[in-house]
Amino acid sequence: MLKSIKESPLYKIANPNSIAFLGASNNFMSMGTQMLDSVKLLGFEGAVYPVHPKEDTVLGFKAYPRIADLPEVPDLAVIVLPTKIVSEIIKACGQKGIKHAIVVSGGFREVGGSGIALQAELEQTAAAHGVRLLGPNCLGVANVHHRFNPTPLPCDCAPGFVGLASQSGSFITQIFNYLQLHKMGFSTAFSVGNELNIDMVDCLEYLGACPNTKVIALYIEGLRRGREFVETARSIVPHKPIVALYVGGSESGRQAAFSHTGAMAGPDRLYDGILRQSGIIRAASLTELFDFCWALGSQPSPRGPNVVIQTHSGGPGATAADSCGRAGLALASLKPETVEKLRPFVPHTASVKNPIDLTFNKNMQDFYWDIPKLLLEDENTDMLLLYFLAPPVFIERFLTGMGASSEQAIKDARKIIDDQAVTFIRLVDSYDKPIIGYTYRSLQEPFVNKLLDHGIPVYPDPSRAAKAMGALRQYALLRGKIVTGEK
Amino acid sequence: MLKSIKESPLYKIANPNSIAFLGASNNFMSMGTQMLDSVKLLGFEGAVYPVHPKEDTVLGFKAYPRIADLPEVPDLAVIVLPTKIVSEIIKACGQKGIKHAIVVSGGFREVGGSGIALQAELEQTAAAHGVRLLGPNCLGVANVHHRFNPTPLPCDCAPGFVGLASQSGSFITQIFNYLQLHKMGFSTAFSVGNELNIDMVDCLEYLGACPNTKVIALYIEGLRRGREFVETARSIVPHKPIVALYVGGSESGRQAAFSHTGAMAGPDRLYDGILRQSGIIRAASLTELFDFCWALGSQPSPRGPNVVIQTHSGGPGATAADSCGRAGLALASLKPETVEKLRPFVPHTASVKNPIDLTFNKNMQDFYWDIPKLLLEDENTDMLLLYFLAPPVFIERFLTGMGASSEQAIKDARKIIDDQAVTFIRLVDSYDKPIIGYTYRSLQEPFVNKLLDHGIPVYPDPSRAAKAMGALRQYALLRGKIVTGEK
Repeated sequence: MLKSIKESPLYKIANPNSIAFLGASNNFMSMGTQMLDSVKLLGFEGAVYPVHPKEDTVLGFKAYPRIADLPEVPDLAVIVLPTKIVSEIIKACGQKGIKHAIVVSGGFREVGGSGIALQAELEQTAAAHGVRLLGPNCLGVANVHHRFNPTPLPCDCAPGFVGLASQSGSFITQIFNYLQLHKMGFSTAFSVGNELNIDMVDCLEYLGACPNTKVIALYIEGLRRGREFVETARSIVPHKPIVALYVGGSESGRQAAFSHTGAMAGPDRLYDGILRQSGIIRAASLTELFDFCWALGSQPSPRGPNVVIQTHSGGPGATAADSCGRAGLALASLKPETVEKLRPFVPHTASVKNPIDLTFNKNMQDFYWDIPKLLLEDENTDMLLLYFLAPPVFIERFLTGMGASSEQAIKDARKIIDDQAVTFIRLVDSYDKPIIGYTYRSLQEPFVNKLLDHGIPVYPDPSRAAKAMGALRQYALLRGKIVTGEK
Repeated sequence: MLKSIKESPLYKIANPNSIAFLGASNNFMSMGTQMLDSVKLLGFEGAVYPVHPKEDTVLGFKAYPRIADLPEVPDLAVIVLPTKIVSEIIKACGQKGIKHAIVVSGGFREVGGSGIALQAELEQTAAAHGVRLLGPNCLGVANVHHRFNPTPLPCDCAPGFVGLASQSGSFITQIFNYLQLHKMGFSTAFSVGNELNIDMVDCLEYLGACPNTKVIALYIEGLRRGREFVETARSIVPHKPIVALYVGGSESGRQAAFSHTGAMAGPDRLYDGILRQSGIIRAASLTELFDFCWALGSQPSPRGPNVVIQTHSGGPGATAADSCGRAGLALASLKPETVEKLRPFVPHTASVKNPIDLTFNKNMQDFYWDIPKLLLEDENTDMLLLYFLAPPVFIERFLTGMGASSEQAIKDARKIIDDQAVTFIRLVDSYDKPIIGYTYRSLQEPFVNKLLDHGIPVYPDPSRAAKAMGALRQYALLRGKIVTGEK
């Protein structure tokens, strides 16, 4: 384990104060240019030194013909140049005193043949000049907190708490938009590529020590340092959850992973064992990877497996109950006192058994305050799963029915919905139990969006919500095993 | 099997020319009022007769004090009244000559106790007066093609091809918005409630005969007429796929289903057998139910299990390949001629092995025409799975880089993207193989949205896309078994 995050070879890569950029020009058809443009767009505050043989300026930054000409020794070089000259460039970096690099260029081990020799040469050069590099064949890093995003896509997501280490570059950049739609966000995301002299274990160590990272996501096509991986993960899990997606376990996944990064995948069962031993929760898809991170990074640990479901609709209640069962959770049995206290709030056609189904409900104060309060106070409940419908149209049509203009109704409905959300958030904040929502409507609707802003995950399907709650429970159990030394 | 859809007891319920509405007023806090408002908002073209003891008009429709006073015999009565008077109202309907009703009111068998007796009384009354009714304890019907939506939520989705029969009312109305986001839509959706004298088998028969329905979705908490269900399904599957979500199989699902509609659920294994024997594809969540319907209702049947994946990013390619493996599909082995023809289009750092990974790609004409054309022409491929990124920002930043104003760049980028989509759609239309897309960006982005408009499903995750392709394959196999008489 690192004594300080600054010991990590990734520290200067993720938090540079100055960078050299090789492979950007003023032509936007070039990938390097797009990457430097992303750096500029996120407002990176450090010095930027494009290196270009002909241009005086690149994207408005003063350019330098050679690395040797740079006015200072930058913390990091980002290299997006043809495969054959990469080694030479790393040598020039070393000679200048640059100790860290991101090598975006591909065409090394992952293509086989002469690429293997080129990678061996690069490895020797890096070792000879003491350069630690991320890649080759990677997209490097996105550290949103440091406003540093040298990836092809502009970063349109806010800084967040998910740390990612990925054997695919796509996942550190092509999902900014996805994360933003869910109001999640990256702390720092690493793309490791061919893992020449920095690998997944280094990323784990960094993210374990990173104060902005509350949960770690791993995208794995094949691991190299198995023993170190397990040990590092086990040292992190007691204070931070780790979730992994492994895609090399099926025959078709193994083939694809091999032509992607040349990683040697192993059978599913082997990786299941490695991950379990590491205390890592396994996700079955990329959606699930981030679903789990969302809950694990925002919710407290549940004391047990007992879920109470609050709904105003029977079908969504039943699907949620079924999903909880399939996710290894139980329906909480409410205490008789709770059931008695609930009765006044629940119509005779509705259900005070878990799921608490209010059917048609007239008083929103009940729904967003009194009832969840009773459910959260009950010692038999460990987690609350809430179905939200709340489309503004319900309130708008009521207000227009009372004589309001359509414009006024929309405005007033928004105000009412915001007040309801504030009420619910105030309640929820005073309990130390996980609260998760689900809806079939857009996450952009005002009530749900307000909850997302406050860090309450709302999933677009109860099965996703239940699996995420299952991950919360699983983390509590895995963590317990590691803390008590059980294998 | 029905000789004509008009023989179905559901025909007049789903396609009425005139309705009586009992339980709506001018007070928008009432559920009945909201339901009648939905009828009005969708522009129902038939006659509407609200029955109200005091009001002269209800939501602008002339109201009548009693059923007996109606100026004609309407095709259908919609009843949203207190439990205790429902039986009496059905009697009045029968006396007026109204032969079809939707009983929204709950408080019958599903609440136990005196509700059981009330339901028995209702059943006798309906039988005595020859009234066929949907419910009680249901939301009735939404027939978007007929512009008839007497459910609580306004219908904001276009007419579509998914027929639904549901043991939850929520799912016929609370997911209009969800379907619209995916550019799917209902043909007709039924909520069966307590299934007094119309049940899931009747719905299956209707939807099997319904010309607007290309695929049937079932939400099941527990089935009653098992043998008839299997026979009816088997008569439909040869010409129309059926997908089912069954939630009563887990202990928690069983409990919830019982307090919802009083349905007797059975163990998972029993229902697995019933569904398999019926030729029905089973979905594991509501999302999956509609995911499967989306592909089955829009795509041709694949000739085999071999998928070819086209991507410009390795990670999304590998996750898709792994997902295909897990969904029971195979990666197609391209013919050597295809691989040769592909080479000029693919950079040396990229892969011409399946998944076809273009990495960074400069010529969009290749990506949306030449390459998929080669892949679709190869006899070894049965289905094409395509990763779409295509955010407008890539093109916009290129155009501004060339000197365009930001406004002009946005406009021109939109035009370029639309042209690319048209190119791809034109290509795809000339092949009889399923084409499915996936993306991690919003489905509302212009390229993807254009594809959705054209009926090409684009899923927000490769695992969902692969499972939907698995459902296409499964349907081909199940259909084959039934046609050849295999059990």
